[in-house]
Amino acid sequence: MDNQKVNNSKRKLLASAGAIGLGGLVPNSAIGQSSGSENMPPNIPKWMKSLGEPVNWRSYGLPSEFEKHVVKFKRPSDQPTEGVSLTPLQDLHGTITPSGLIFERQHGGVPIIDPSQQRLMVHGMVKRPLLLDMNDIVRLPSISRVYFLECSGNTSRDWAKPVSKNVQQTHGLLSNCEWTGVLLSTLLDEVGVDPKATWILAEGSDASAHTRSLPIGKCFEDAMLVYAQNGEMLRPEQGYPLRLIIPGWEGNVSVKWLRRLKVGDAPFYTRQETSRYTDLMPDGKAREFTFVMEAKSVITKPSGGQKLLKQGFNEISGLAWSGNGRIQRVDVSTDAGKTWREARIDGPVQTRAVVRFTYPWSWNGGPAILQSRAVDETGYVQPTRSQIISLRGINSRYHYNAIQSWGVNSNGEVSNVQA
Amino acid sequence: MDNQKVNNSKRKLLASAGAIGLGGLVPNSAIGQSSGSENMPPNIPKWMKSLGEPVNWRSYGLPSEFEKHVVKFKRPSDQPTEGVSLTPLQDLHGTITPSGLIFERQHGGVPIIDPSQQRLMVHGMVKRPLLLDMNDIVRLPSISRVYFLECSGNTSRDWAKPVSKNVQQTHGLLSNCEWTGVLLSTLLDEVGVDPKATWILAEGSDASAHTRSLPIGKCFEDAMLVYAQNGEMLRPEQGYPLRLIIPGWEGNVSVKWLRRLKVGDAPFYTRQETSRYTDLMPDGKAREFTFVMEAKSVITKPSGGQKLLKQGFNEISGLAWSGNGRIQRVDVSTDAGKTWREARIDGPVQTRAVVRFTYPWSWNGGPAILQSRAVDETGYVQPTRSQIISLRGINSRYHYNAIQSWGVNSNGEVSNVQA
Repeated sequence: MDNQKVNNSKRKLLASAGAIGLGGLVPNSAIGQSSGSENMPPNIPKWMKSLGEPVNWRSYGLPSEFEKHVVKFKRPSDQPTEGVSLTPLQDLHGTITPSGLIFERQHGGVPIIDPSQQRLMVHGMVKRPLLLDMNDIVRLPSISRVYFLECSGNTSRDWAKPVSKNVQQTHGLLSNCEWTGVLLSTLLDEVGVDPKATWILAEGSDASAHTRSLPIGKCFEDAMLVYAQNGEMLRPEQGYPLRLIIPGWEGNVSVKWLRRLKVGDAPFYTRQETSRYTDLMPDGKAREFTFVMEAKSVITKPSGGQKLLKQGFNEISGLAWSGNGRIQRVDVSTDAGKTWREARIDGPVQTRAVVRFTYPWSWNGGPAILQSRAVDETGYVQPTRSQIISLRGINSRYHYNAIQSWGVNSNGEVSNVQA
Repeated sequence: MDNQKVNNSKRKLLASAGAIGLGGLVPNSAIGQSSGSENMPPNIPKWMKSLGEPVNWRSYGLPSEFEKHVVKFKRPSDQPTEGVSLTPLQDLHGTITPSGLIFERQHGGVPIIDPSQQRLMVHGMVKRPLLLDMNDIVRLPSISRVYFLECSGNTSRDWAKPVSKNVQQTHGLLSNCEWTGVLLSTLLDEVGVDPKATWILAEGSDASAHTRSLPIGKCFEDAMLVYAQNGEMLRPEQGYPLRLIIPGWEGNVSVKWLRRLKVGDAPFYTRQETSRYTDLMPDGKAREFTFVMEAKSVITKPSGGQKLLKQGFNEISGLAWSGNGRIQRVDVSTDAGKTWREARIDGPVQTRAVVRFTYPWSWNGGPAILQSRAVDETGYVQPTRSQIISLRGINSRYHYNAIQSWGVNSNGEVSNVQA
């Protein structure tokens, strides 16, 4: 934040147009070039000439009618209750994903749960099994944390070659929210976990009874029992009224509509960790329990399907995140990775949370290939597509985190390209 | 965040129930005490027995039907387009205010603006007057910051004595959001401000042409031109498509639906800074341009109208903020201010942003009076009601930030009391 702080000094006040050395950020916008519409200066716009919508027009607010295109998109699937819907990253700003636009990965549809009938059972290798209702949980010591959530299948359709048109399709299985709830360790302390325990089974109360095994170390480290998201109770499609958040790990282990935690001394080998969510390697074997989402980044502005309208200053902006901790640096290239320059990271850098990066770019009107590359606090560097393929082949459906390339042509049109 | 980090050690694993010394956080919830409903264990709930709502049920998500009571509330006023609606703080969690629940203060209703016809004119004492459209603004260097927004009239109905029933009515003219846009200083550098300039007029394009004068120092310090809020474009009632954010200052100067900035060398003395938004003092004179919202806090859980259901552990939680910088400390009293203990501040502390504080409390079943007191980085301590009244009387309508008292009776019922 400090690097944005400006001095209110005479020096600053005297700064002339084009202060950041780009010959003017707003090259063609002098007063007098109005289109002549009735709503343009010097005219008074029509919406100032009569009273607007009443106070509390909507007791629960909604986006402008001019933003109707900013919606989740469902990827075609065999069954309406199974599959994904994607977050429109190309139209989003900052770091928080609005609760109405958070991606979905559903296995049996969205259950509609009366919170007064919700119970969480904690049992297995514990001294004091418990059955908790929502009032019991909300009374407990609470914390709020910003964490990203990414589906392990995010971006994997573009593994072999670029096929997706825009960043909603390539990277839209990603969200970043403020989560409020209880540290799972608080609850585990209450039930008294057997020192021989090593894994915990988490079961959701959707129609698929989505169920995953979690190593107990992560459950004591930073896992959360969550009831609120971005300030309000969870949305139905995000696990209302109770879910797990397992920070930095693939989204499907953050079990929604949580009803049961069973403490044990081995993985439970459920359907969703054997038939799926394993990583097929080139030798035909599959890795299992590959939970961590490694460092990744993507440019969202400009991105596929968008068009640069003017030459000159066009800010590049995007998102970076790592399941292994804090983002340390993001580099940007505008020449397909030949040269890299460090981007500015905006705002506080929180562990296992998305950061927004920005890079001042002046488009010269020629073709360009834009890339971003994240480095996290462990020193891990986001790989190229060819590095991933050389190591893991192209038949693995999960954990693809290669550098994304957006091509800009001389018309300013942006598309998904291989570089 | 580090103070929440736990070690996955044998010591931790061996911790027994009641680890934090309260005799068990969940006293009466052993398995077997189910109510016998068909949805309670050992039964399988009915919502697991058939497929749920489809993926992307709603392409723009909404809260659960069981949360319909969590809405803004309009305070009665003479005209439907003038007045306020309040944020339901008693039902919110964490620090982010959901975009659908942000308080409103409207002077002429909510204009519905086509962003393609929106223009911002920057003129007056500048070298290079500009007329910008939204594309010009979104191309500029962007930043995202979390800042609170509080109406200067927040809590003032309870100045002389407690009359409001709940925290939505007492403190609901408060929100906290991630704002994305352009530093106003970036734009002022572009137009080249005359070194003799001292004030800037900001005009909104609602039917009231809401207009305020701003000292130029603040405009260069941290003021923002904002187009997005909590990750998506501004909502109509929050200024879509463009508004000012003046961090830490009374909400009405963060002019919505911004259409014009005029640079000058004196305040403009507009209607909304002379007839209103001045602070009447006991001697009959009024202070003007009292912009800063000083340090304040309030307990939201438990708060007026709520009821404690069980004796024993009941977390106290609330919000604190200061227009003068970062919150340094929050103290909590459960005995009407006789004794104070420091609360835990959750998450990163950002300047001029709301923090969530929590305090571990065990209710003994007797009466109690709960208070919180914020201290900011300047050393300023949130005052008591009597301190404010002795200094400023009871006829000033703005900038009331006294310590709030919630009484708990032996039935667990919580109400707004004077202490």
